[in-house]
Amino acid sequence: MSGTFITFEGCEGVGKTTQVKLLKEYLQNTGQSCLVTREPGGTKIAEEIRSMILGGNKEIHPIVEAYLFATARADHMLNFVIPALDEGIIVICDRYLDSSLAYQGVGRGLGYERVQKINEVASSYRVPDCTIFINMSPSNSFRRQKGKVIEGDRMEGEDEQFHNKVYNAFLDLSKRYAERFITIEPSIEKVETSKNIIKKLIERGLIN
Amino acid sequence: MSGTFITFEGCEGVGKTTQVKLLKEYLQNTGQSCLVTREPGGTKIAEEIRSMILGGNKEIHPIVEAYLFATARADHMLNFVIPALDEGIIVICDRYLDSSLAYQGVGRGLGYERVQKINEVASSYRVPDCTIFINMSPSNSFRRQKGKVIEGDRMEGEDEQFHNKVYNAFLDLSKRYAERFITIEPSIEKVETSKNIIKKLIERGLIN
Repeated sequence: MSGTFITFEGCEGVGKTTQVKLLKEYLQNTGQSCLVTREPGGTKIAEEIRSMILGGNKEIHPIVEAYLFATARADHMLNFVIPALDEGIIVICDRYLDSSLAYQGVGRGLGYERVQKINEVASSYRVPDCTIFINMSPSNSFRRQKGKVIEGDRMEGEDEQFHNKVYNAFLDLSKRYAERFITIEPSIEKVETSKNIIKKLIERGLIN
Repeated sequence: MSGTFITFEGCEGVGKTTQVKLLKEYLQNTGQSCLVTREPGGTKIAEEIRSMILGGNKEIHPIVEAYLFATARADHMLNFVIPALDEGIIVICDRYLDSSLAYQGVGRGLGYERVQKINEVASSYRVPDCTIFINMSPSNSFRRQKGKVIEGDRMEGEDEQFHNKVYNAFLDLSKRYAERFITIEPSIEKVETSKNIIKKLIERGLIN
């Protein structure tokens, strides 16, 4: 028995966290067991690493950054995600390996291959059953629309060019792994977007 | 121009740190530039990870342990060892990849191949020019001879069976990579052991 592993991907401020929450509510209301988690994070070690990466303004080499994410991922997969999947639960994860491919592989310029190598053991050879890609360019992100200044953590603090590279990488990944990706064009009405996501997950037989 | 990368390997309490110190003194007294460092450590991030791994009694999955060491290694190599080697300096490192192969690969049972994969990018494809293996079994270690209780960090706290496995792994690695390893049978006189190490490094043309 194995549960269903669903990941959410996309740029900063496109509403991933809200959509994860709405999907969780739908699953709970329809009696389907699910666990919601995020990367990097979800375990004590992974949260410690999260603050190492995202907290400070330290100079971190892109390879080291990729390793820190991979280490947090290994801990999160081994101690949280895989045990839950083994119990047959639906696990919804806000960001996963595709974020490393987009941010470190393309944004930081390490290339997909090197990031894949660093993550090969960490991701425990576990490919998501489905990846929801919220397709919104950085310049259209809700955060931008609201006129908020983009600041805060290490990734959010990067410039527009960086975020555009990351966005293009997600677009590219959604084509390379078309059988796994569901690309969602978000509506300004977040409930509409959620209905669309749920409909597509049902069509694929991943949820009821 | 590239410097010379010399690593020291062996079990706990066999005198590695003393031998590193004596080699450094010899090089300094003969006007040869060298840098001494250790793994895990040598940079801010690596030292933070060092305390995560060795400090507490936390349960850490062997794969996560291997990733933490690899992350510290990546940072140490990129920000310390490789720049020094690029300046033509002799870098002496107390433990390196062979320790991961012995401790996580064999001691923790992950196998060489998985540990190699985790470290492929971290070690920046940099093989030591020479690895000094101080060949002393855990039951003969100086620490044991002095009647000290083996306690303290995460590795030292492991049982005899674990340390025997690690020792046998080092023996095996010294045969697999015989062209790179110098195996030293340590004398009770640490200065004798040091003279022996220096003699062999000179014979190989690695130092003067």
